[in-house]
Amino acid sequence: MITTSLSIARTSRVPGAMRVPSCARPCARSTRSGAETPRNAGEPHRARHLRAAVPLQRHDPQRPRAGPARVASSGSTRMTLVGVDWGSSNLRAYRFGPDGAVIDRRESPRGAARLKRDEFPQVLADTLDGWLEADTRVVLAGMVGARAGWHEAPYLPCPADPAGLAAAALRAEDAPAHCFIVPGLSARSASGVANVMRGEETQILGSGLADGTIVLPGTHSKWARVEGGRITGFSTIMTGEMYALLRNNSLLGQLAEGDAPDEAAFTLGAQRALDNPAGVLPLLFSARADVLLGSLAPQAVASYLSGLLIGGEVAAMRDAAGQGVVLICNAVLAAHYRVALALAAVTDVAVVDGADAVARGLWRIGGLLK
Amino acid sequence: MITTSLSIARTSRVPGAMRVPSCARPCARSTRSGAETPRNAGEPHRARHLRAAVPLQRHDPQRPRAGPARVASSGSTRMTLVGVDWGSSNLRAYRFGPDGAVIDRRESPRGAARLKRDEFPQVLADTLDGWLEADTRVVLAGMVGARAGWHEAPYLPCPADPAGLAAAALRAEDAPAHCFIVPGLSARSASGVANVMRGEETQILGSGLADGTIVLPGTHSKWARVEGGRITGFSTIMTGEMYALLRNNSLLGQLAEGDAPDEAAFTLGAQRALDNPAGVLPLLFSARADVLLGSLAPQAVASYLSGLLIGGEVAAMRDAAGQGVVLICNAVLAAHYRVALALAAVTDVAVVDGADAVARGLWRIGGLLK
Repeated sequence: MITTSLSIARTSRVPGAMRVPSCARPCARSTRSGAETPRNAGEPHRARHLRAAVPLQRHDPQRPRAGPARVASSGSTRMTLVGVDWGSSNLRAYRFGPDGAVIDRRESPRGAARLKRDEFPQVLADTLDGWLEADTRVVLAGMVGARAGWHEAPYLPCPADPAGLAAAALRAEDAPAHCFIVPGLSARSASGVANVMRGEETQILGSGLADGTIVLPGTHSKWARVEGGRITGFSTIMTGEMYALLRNNSLLGQLAEGDAPDEAAFTLGAQRALDNPAGVLPLLFSARADVLLGSLAPQAVASYLSGLLIGGEVAAMRDAAGQGVVLICNAVLAAHYRVALALAAVTDVAVVDGADAVARGLWRIGGLLK
Repeated sequence: MITTSLSIARTSRVPGAMRVPSCARPCARSTRSGAETPRNAGEPHRARHLRAAVPLQRHDPQRPRAGPARVASSGSTRMTLVGVDWGSSNLRAYRFGPDGAVIDRRESPRGAARLKRDEFPQVLADTLDGWLEADTRVVLAGMVGARAGWHEAPYLPCPADPAGLAAAALRAEDAPAHCFIVPGLSARSASGVANVMRGEETQILGSGLADGTIVLPGTHSKWARVEGGRITGFSTIMTGEMYALLRNNSLLGQLAEGDAPDEAAFTLGAQRALDNPAGVLPLLFSARADVLLGSLAPQAVASYLSGLLIGGEVAAMRDAAGQGVVLICNAVLAAHYRVALALAAVTDVAVVDGADAVARGLWRIGGLLK
């Protein structure tokens, strides 16, 4: 089940785009972002309190579905840490050295939304085969902790800090090692509007938690506020999902031809979204009308629509941006958000790679586990 | 092909909801609204100039696909008028008395999007069978005039008045009578944002063309400005289509259970959309987050989402509403828009039935044909 196994010596820098497809549109960082998977959504909660300590199990050939990973032969007894970003569609595992550097990395397509509850232990054992020592702790973040995942780790309300997240981590007893599932976060605005995230909280921790606004573009973009080392609240904009729905399922997208990037069309869309005081809603249909009137090439529709939506996201959240933002995403998406943010006069933009951030966040929580 | 044949003596009032499903959500007035159908979208324009006069054809058994309707036996030679609202999914035909009252009405499921180009004459002949006299004029509006319809009647740019629409009507020579296809309208905002409509222009004419804002809620809601008897411009909000996409195709809708109306949830959604200065985009995800946090019943999600979207439409267009609006739609949709408009302090709301409006608009254009 292991699709990639890279040795990355003495650095947590993971090259390339791990969480975002290399396209010019907001077509999702990961389908797990902030969205509970619907499978078994109606199933009653279970396993809310699974903290009974369970020793590392030894391999037993009679229990292939829930057996442990093969324990590394080093025989070392020092504490080691493994981090797992287990989203809906795949999982990414990081093996940390004693200083927090990522010394090995693996990926598997066996995402949380594709597994039955009792399949999680074996998938984890397969993925981490050879990495586990007697006292290895495994920190898991993402949809693995959703209601329809392995065990539900209930949302922790904001404000939340790293120690709070570590304290609320859920220990899974049916695991091939000392496994802790990081909870998601919830927030509610002053007017009562609810938000949830699951996985992004770990990336935000990994970004350093400097005061300001952290933006995680994607299927469900998150705009989080960080104050005094805590995540104090956040908003969600369904930019990536809206793009996919409008491009692929709507009457709007039926005149579009292809998805080749068109920078001018993207910028035009973003500029219009930022200029229009009534917001992006009255602009979306122009992606179709302009084609019918011959003033937009069908080949430019996808980028124009992407510009409208990312511009609309930035316009809606411009007040939250304040002096600047930290973007957590890959380079392609960051370039597009930079364009829209610059049009909104937000030029103080730092970029943190999403895979980097999640690895550092997992390490940070792992160090705080009691 | 005739599914309904009602005699409605001396009145153009058509009872019940003709154009809107009886549901509490913006699930489309008609799929034709303002949206060119994609079929044959790439086909070159043709038949742009078809005004050569063609006498009414007599029935010829050798030409079953394009033959004429049976001419009514009255033998009258006075001018008579038939109006046809030919949308994507169905057509509705109105037979007018000499004073403009609808004296008979028929419907067919053979909408423009379901027909090949050469099928239109026979469908029209079947539908109007027995209605046509030697000098009967047939006025057709809607997607029948789209690029992928029978013959393309190019968009007429705003500002446009009834005489301009009548003058631009396209005569179809391959028709079972003197057939005129009403063009759609186009508009472009000061900042260059394009809009098109096809069919709604006839409803707006039929609503009386009083100065003010005319709102046609639906798949692609139109907000049109009328000044001095002319349609001077309009905007499009994809409220109905967005509702359907989010309810049926998105992660958002997967936690929803059923579509039973919930007035409180609708009002909550509309109020939030109107209260939020950042617009509706940062609110949509709350339809999911509130369910995951246990603060919204899955049974209320559909109405809450409808409230968010209709409230978001009204919020985006509040400046256009000014002192009041005329709604062209059925009673159920009107009730919902009244709620959202009242929350936005727009209480001067008149309602015109959509079927009424299109019949009166067809009559008005018919009287202006040269």
